Amino acid sequence: MKPVIIIGSGGHARVLLDILLRKSQAILGFTDLPHQKNSLSPPFLNIPLIGSDEQIFNYPPDAIHLVNGLGMIPGPGLFRRRDIYQKFKDYGYTFATIVHPSAVIAEDVILSEGVQVMAGAVIQTGSVIGENCIINTRTAVDHDTVLGRHVHLAPGTTVCGNVTIGEGSFVGAGSTIIPGIKIAANSIIKAGSLIKYKLDTPY
Amino acid sequence: MKPVIIIGSGGHARVLLDILLRKSQAILGFTDLPHQKNSLSPPFLNIPLIGSDEQIFNYPPDAIHLVNGLGMIPGPGLFRRRDIYQKFKDYGYTFATIVHPSAVIAEDVILSEGVQVMAGAVIQTGSVIGENCIINTRTAVDHDTVLGRHVHLAPGTTVCGNVTIGEGSFVGAGSTIIPGIKIAANSIIKAGSLIKYKLDTPY
Amino acid sequence: MKPVIIIGSGGHARVLLDILLRKSQAILGFTDLPHQKNSLSPPFLNIPLIGSDEQIFNYPPDAIHLVNGLGMIPGPGLFRRRDIYQKFKDYGYTFATIVHPSAVIAEDVILSEGVQVMAGAVIQTGSVIGENCIINTRTAVDHDTVLGRHVHLAPGTTVCGNVTIGEGSFVGAGSTIIPGIKIAANSIIKAGSLIKYKLDTPY
Repeated sequence: MKPVIIIGSGGHARVLLDILLRKSQAILGFTDLPHQKNSLSPPFLNIPLIGSDEQIFNYPPDAIHLVNGLGMIPGPGLFRRRDIYQKFKDYGYTFATIVHPSAVIAEDVILSEGVQVMAGAVIQTGSVIGENCIINTRTAVDHDTVLGRHVHLAPGTTVCGNVTIGEGSFVGAGSTIIPGIKIAANSIIKAGSLIKYKLDTPY
Repeated sequence: MKPVIIIGSGGHARVLLDILLRKSQAILGFTDLPHQKNSLSPPFLNIPLIGSDEQIFNYPPDAIHLVNGLGMIPGPGLFRRRDIYQKFKDYGYTFATIVHPSAVIAEDVILSEGVQVMAGAVIQTGSVIGENCIINTRTAVDHDTVLGRHVHLAPGTTVCGNVTIGEGSFVGAGSTIIPGIKIAANSIIKAGSLIKYKLDTPY
Repeated sequence: MKPVIIIGSGGHARVLLDILLRKSQAILGFTDLPHQKNSLSPPFLNIPLIGSDEQIFNYPPDAIHLVNGLGMIPGPGLFRRRDIYQKFKDYGYTFATIVHPSAVIAEDVILSEGVQVMAGAVIQTGSVIGENCIINTRTAVDHDTVLGRHVHLAPGTTVCGNVTIGEGSFVGAGSTIIPGIKIAANSIIKAGSLIKYKLDTPY
């Protein structure tokens, strides 16, 4: 497999690093904002900081895969994860699909480009996960559930069967979505929510 | 092991199919209601639809095992899962006990006939699970918990230690039951509930 | 590894026994209060009851490890788990750190002495778990989370990234703590809680 560059170097990026190292993936380095002050910033486990995201253009798109290391950024940064994915896609780069070895995914599930499935997650049969989604730590996605692009299921969420979640939505930690519910695009569901009704407009 | 027939062909049935295929179980086919309109209906992964449930009587009870593929059916179908189990038991058929390989079950746990344990579930020591129960995706059942027959723990539920749940009860997705609680038979606990008090009568 | 003695013989002790047996750990026995009436009390799986906790002093501190089998005891026994740990530490004994084989723990996580990680739990990168903590059944601890000593995360809890939980705190079953929250020492968080605000004083 081609070597990867991880965009960002915060907590989410390092959770991904942990998965990549378990799979013996070659990693060129992290990127980060210039002058980022972060006590946990690279070099981390000997993975270097290669500079700002712009340094990625020093590598041809067909020579590497990218890993989107941005997690949920509340406030004005909310769409940074989506925007950075689309920016580099526009330049011809591809994003690695990353699955923790402890995750359980039914054979017929479709994981699109750049999907990230964290430790302890389960995705049941018939589900389709859109590009750049995060299925975070110990999340359950039951059968025939469809997630649009850029959806983030935060840790410990339970999504029942036959649920549809529109592009760009965020489902907060520990939330539960009952069977058959449809959630509109760009919905922000707060942590600990119980979603029993169709959400036609952002929450 | 004897070949199985899966009763039903909806989402729950196909989650079970995913487990059976992982275990290289021989599968004769699904049954379904006549004229069922279901875009996901069989043939699915080359497993045929053998017809209505009545077709099962073409197979002698000692030649096959049955798999109860009916999940939670709200409203008037609520007891269909229980009724179909009892009907075929009365005719001498047996039901396979099915455990996803990722489920963690303590050595001394008793799983009765027809119990179904889905991916990511945990059942701790001293627990007893009654016939035809569903321990659904990523459910936790802690020590010394006793479930009567036909109990369905929906995805993402947490049942603490020393809990007793009476026959026929349904515990909705993402619910939590604290230690030592007793739940009466035929209780319907809504998704996202926190159960702190003994339920003497159905909820 | 040295043989162990399990302090206590209730449900939590037997969940630990299940882990120890999976790891083929030599076990000298359980202790228990004199005249304890417990239908599940030892001998359990042929592990003998060696008597009250005072019997431990018949074994030199460097010949054995201890396993703290006390779980959450509501009311006046609330600090028994902590007190018994400190008492035997003061006499020079050491406590085994116990991790269920199904738990997923990032390479760089620090598990202090006597930590107990139950089945299905996940602990993500950068986290530090203090002495004598319980990370109970199917709990999620996300990146860069720091738990003080004697913290008990009950089953099914979700602790997001960058959380700090002070020494001696209890987080009830099915609770969710959102990213970046700080919880004061000795906080008691009820089952099913959603913690969105910094807790400066016990809850």
